[in-house]
Amino acid sequence: MKIKAAVINKEGEYPVLQDHEIDVKADEVIVDVIASALNHRDLWIVKGQYGRIQYPIILGSDGCVSHNGGQYLINPGLNWGDRQAYQGGDFDILGMPSEGCFAEKVQVSEAYLHEKPSHMSVEEAAALPLGGLTAYRALFSRAQLQKGEKVFISGIGGGVALFAMQFAVANGNEVYVSSSSEEKIAEAISLGASGGYNYKDDDMHKQVLKSVGPMDVIIDSAGGPGFSKLVNITAKGARISIYGGTRGEASFSPQRLFWNQASILGTTMGSDQDFSDMLEFVNKHQIKPVIDKVYPIDEIKEAILRMKEGAQFGKIVIKNKL
Amino acid sequence: MKIKAAVINKEGEYPVLQDHEIDVKADEVIVDVIASALNHRDLWIVKGQYGRIQYPIILGSDGCVSHNGGQYLINPGLNWGDRQAYQGGDFDILGMPSEGCFAEKVQVSEAYLHEKPSHMSVEEAAALPLGGLTAYRALFSRAQLQKGEKVFISGIGGGVALFAMQFAVANGNEVYVSSSSEEKIAEAISLGASGGYNYKDDDMHKQVLKSVGPMDVIIDSAGGPGFSKLVNITAKGARISIYGGTRGEASFSPQRLFWNQASILGTTMGSDQDFSDMLEFVNKHQIKPVIDKVYPIDEIKEAILRMKEGAQFGKIVIKNKL
Repeated sequence: MKIKAAVINKEGEYPVLQDHEIDVKADEVIVDVIASALNHRDLWIVKGQYGRIQYPIILGSDGCVSHNGGQYLINPGLNWGDRQAYQGGDFDILGMPSEGCFAEKVQVSEAYLHEKPSHMSVEEAAALPLGGLTAYRALFSRAQLQKGEKVFISGIGGGVALFAMQFAVANGNEVYVSSSSEEKIAEAISLGASGGYNYKDDDMHKQVLKSVGPMDVIIDSAGGPGFSKLVNITAKGARISIYGGTRGEASFSPQRLFWNQASILGTTMGSDQDFSDMLEFVNKHQIKPVIDKVYPIDEIKEAILRMKEGAQFGKIVIKNKL
Repeated sequence: MKIKAAVINKEGEYPVLQDHEIDVKADEVIVDVIASALNHRDLWIVKGQYGRIQYPIILGSDGCVSHNGGQYLINPGLNWGDRQAYQGGDFDILGMPSEGCFAEKVQVSEAYLHEKPSHMSVEEAAALPLGGLTAYRALFSRAQLQKGEKVFISGIGGGVALFAMQFAVANGNEVYVSSSSEEKIAEAISLGASGGYNYKDDDMHKQVLKSVGPMDVIIDSAGGPGFSKLVNITAKGARISIYGGTRGEASFSPQRLFWNQASILGTTMGSDQDFSDMLEFVNKHQIKPVIDKVYPIDEIKEAILRMKEGAQFGKIVIKNKL
């Protein structure tokens, strides 16, 4: 079947809108994409910094779609398997190797379609899946966030970080953030954060400990040498969920970690159960994803450049012209 | 009350046998020390590398004692508190600030006395408490070791590492070790380990992955740059318990950790529950601590020098002349 899609034909290129032939699979449905959203994963693949890249590629792990008159969002975690603790060997993410949502249509198994939350616009719904899933698992399934605990979220502004902040605020927790941008900290506070710190300050950990005390749950996607500051603000029994490594090799003081009986928990994406639980939580608390900017699909290169620049606060959404 | 004890009178000195006055507390009992054992903690304190050192000091966190005609060992984790997840603010370790077991007598609350396992000699019983407690919590309470899982224990030869190895072997798990000494690896294999690797080999992680595959539970007390090799041999869902940091700041690849949904779990000592569970496990499996060498208490300096040298395989025991 021929569809219009934003295709990356070879390494180093940005996606271009063109006709693309897809193999129709009998056990999947072909649905119309209304809107999709960018994730850092898309940027890594565009930069060629991802494992097992196969061209041509249609990116886009997030999608709000229409199918048989209904509107749905897609769980992008394909074939997670039956263990809650980790993904099985067949796990894949929608949008490379399978064709993703930066297209007129996308082919998925019906099992991955979930009803669009009615309190969200189609753009908001498109912004939710991958980031919301990752944040939910990091915060609840992995870190087991409890009522009354203090939460710290590093690098606020990215999609997952904002979802983690919104979820923890909705859960009734006191939430602190870090950023190198005063504007992003101010925006986070307007969304419910109790305070923010500049992670470029060498003594950030001392500022945190002095002003609000140690943290019970920390969510990070940077790693790098700055990771040690996060270990240094752990409370006894604290859990740090880490779902990214933009700053490279992470380091920490073993003494601080073991004396605090603290844990560093690697986490990526989430199980089918995590996805259902996340949707239920988002519906219960009427949470709306923060949208940075909406681009029409023929400006997808500009959308990717915006993410590359790192100035966004919230999700970058791609809207189809239907 | 005046007792004979191995006292450190000031910084930089080794313990010397001398008379020492102890304040008798109404809610504690004074028991006769039969044998005690060294822990790395004692060495750190002798070297002045420990927090809040107060002189004079009587070291010795491990003790096999006699009291009212019975023989007991002492749980050295004082005032842990009521949470299993972490120690409370009043937590202390027997032997600094409170007077420890390198003495003729020691004063403790009766609640910390546990019946000596009948399958052990007094020297073996003295070797068990702190190391056995730390290993048990690292392996079972923190890493939640399951049947059928593969275990890797770094730096075999130290007390805790050997206990962790013996416990995992007794539990029916396949256990691998690392050391820079071929002799220590051979001794570990004779005690039930399935194989060993030299951690000085830059490609140790590749050797492990190639020969026996990834590990489910890893026990480490080194940290340092070599810690990344341990993260690189994690299986999906693996847990690394870390209870020491002899090599300093630990580093790891966030990508490896999060893609494997692996966890790094700081752990130190253990709760009262951990201690009881450890004793029950040791009795059930008739485990005997590995003893490196027994020194009479008037040769305590030689005992400490042996630990400083790092050549020991098993616990260094101090025997009183009764």
